[in-house]
Amino acid sequence: MTETQNRNKQVRKIAVFGDFLGEQERRKIETTVAPHGFSVQYHARNTPPEGLIDDCEIVYGSIGPDAVRAAKSARWICAARAGVNTLCDESLYRNPDCILSNSCGAYGVTVAEHTVMLLLMLLRRQPENDTALRAGGWKPEKKQIMTVSGSRITVLGTGDLGSCFAERIRAFHPKKLLGVRKNPEKQNPLFDEICGISELEQVLPETDILVMCLPDTKETAGLMSAERIALLPKESCLINVGRGTAVDQSALLSALSSGRLNGAALDVVDPEPPASDDPVRHTDSLILTPHVAGNTNNRLSIDNLIDLFCAEFERYVSGKPLLHRIDRKRGY
Amino acid sequence: MTETQNRNKQVRKIAVFGDFLGEQERRKIETTVAPHGFSVQYHARNTPPEGLIDDCEIVYGSIGPDAVRAAKSARWICAARAGVNTLCDESLYRNPDCILSNSCGAYGVTVAEHTVMLLLMLLRRQPENDTALRAGGWKPEKKQIMTVSGSRITVLGTGDLGSCFAERIRAFHPKKLLGVRKNPEKQNPLFDEICGISELEQVLPETDILVMCLPDTKETAGLMSAERIALLPKESCLINVGRGTAVDQSALLSALSSGRLNGAALDVVDPEPPASDDPVRHTDSLILTPHVAGNTNNRLSIDNLIDLFCAEFERYVSGKPLLHRIDRKRGY
Repeated sequence: MTETQNRNKQVRKIAVFGDFLGEQERRKIETTVAPHGFSVQYHARNTPPEGLIDDCEIVYGSIGPDAVRAAKSARWICAARAGVNTLCDESLYRNPDCILSNSCGAYGVTVAEHTVMLLLMLLRRQPENDTALRAGGWKPEKKQIMTVSGSRITVLGTGDLGSCFAERIRAFHPKKLLGVRKNPEKQNPLFDEICGISELEQVLPETDILVMCLPDTKETAGLMSAERIALLPKESCLINVGRGTAVDQSALLSALSSGRLNGAALDVVDPEPPASDDPVRHTDSLILTPHVAGNTNNRLSIDNLIDLFCAEFERYVSGKPLLHRIDRKRGY
Repeated sequence: MTETQNRNKQVRKIAVFGDFLGEQERRKIETTVAPHGFSVQYHARNTPPEGLIDDCEIVYGSIGPDAVRAAKSARWICAARAGVNTLCDESLYRNPDCILSNSCGAYGVTVAEHTVMLLLMLLRRQPENDTALRAGGWKPEKKQIMTVSGSRITVLGTGDLGSCFAERIRAFHPKKLLGVRKNPEKQNPLFDEICGISELEQVLPETDILVMCLPDTKETAGLMSAERIALLPKESCLINVGRGTAVDQSALLSALSSGRLNGAALDVVDPEPPASDDPVRHTDSLILTPHVAGNTNNRLSIDNLIDLFCAEFERYVSGKPLLHRIDRKRGY
């Protein structure tokens, strides 16, 4: 080994972006990478990285397109989130062989807990309780509420989010728990039945609660179109915790306003954040949360993220294929 | 059989109180009781019953002490709810052998769904999301949230409510799910462990989430005293869906205001409804719902209620002991 090679080996660098890492997590990353000759530099989330990460081999964390463009020597970009469609533009990459991976799997539990919360708030008309109390009253006008028990639930997307949700909501004894995915051959014991996206039109009229856990890809954009929303029964509810682009938002809002749909709960909208006069903020029977289902401000997600990165790092340095590698052409 | 006996037999009457029964439910009751020579009369909830139900053998539904007092010939009073402490005063009963029963078991599922909703809203700081959105903003200030996954949950009361809750929350993988009951010998496979109320002081310091599902009895009044609230860890949460009297409410509010407790969610308070200036309405990190966990405005509870009454009626006319008979001295 020449001295130059040796020096190059000594300077293998990892740039880590994001404010979600405490002392403990930084130490875990450092003790994992140091034996392989890597050093770690930290940057705040969304720091303009021009020039700062030119020589980094690995870039990890809360990364936007600018960071990818600035990482001119990068061989592996690992996003600390699941949705990486903004990082799939090939022109961002100086090195076409640079690997992109995501952290799919780190957020399933926290997103599932948020989804169950939204679902129950919707079925139990919780905003009406809250309005009555804030007005100084007590019980709101008595209206029929729904229980998960006995309901027909359809989950669009049976990946990590859909599966974690299904595992939990099963314990509430829905009448039917159906998963819809691209490839219906792949069964999943967490669901009563799995069907293909081509059967969506047959499934929607028999759905009381539609839960959308889809990533943002070319195939999912606008999937719940006005025509498909119209196939849902009048008493049904729609919940979206995947990506806002998967629903025709104005069609959804008009279905809610006209009473053709019972209610909706959205953690994701399009665009984000919505303008102050966006009707998505002011529609009755719509519960909105500010894209917080899959957050990093909980112990569990942070532990999952670090474990996932360290495991992928070990595969990277051993030359094994990464478990969460993204096909940039497909977008997932 | 003399003609008088025959006539008396013909006029066996059931008075039913409450507006929760639709046509379908009334018909189910009528077809159940008619073969046994009973006729049914309906009264609105809380109708002053003076003179109207003098000759009724059975009184069923949304019954208060006035209805019990007015039912001078009653042999069986069946309340369409679980908590019947207001009906246990012996002086209400002209006939000391009159049976009192409740509808324990009809509400477990809807109360459990409400409890999971409250728990998740509390852990995920949902009121802060809501406040940020109502102010025209988007994400609230980033604070640590908690997941059910990995938390230590203690359930006070392992009857119908506690068991239905435990069955559901198990699917969220808490680190520990502990039930506390009067008689610890009675095990319950829905919990990791059952301990007796005498061990409460040892259990509270090791609890992240305390869920109270206790009935209103002499033994439960004030159970969560100031001293016991002080034993809960600073990061813990308290949820009460049983009866408001089981918590020292002013001690709870001061623990929340001083930050000695992370949060609380109450569906039941004392008194109800709280006055407009009651601090229970205006305490940060307290989520309040207006005693709606165990409601009758859902299909499932109504079906359960009618099934339960009809099954108890069959036992009554066959001379079998009722399954939900109340010991008025004990109050449950």
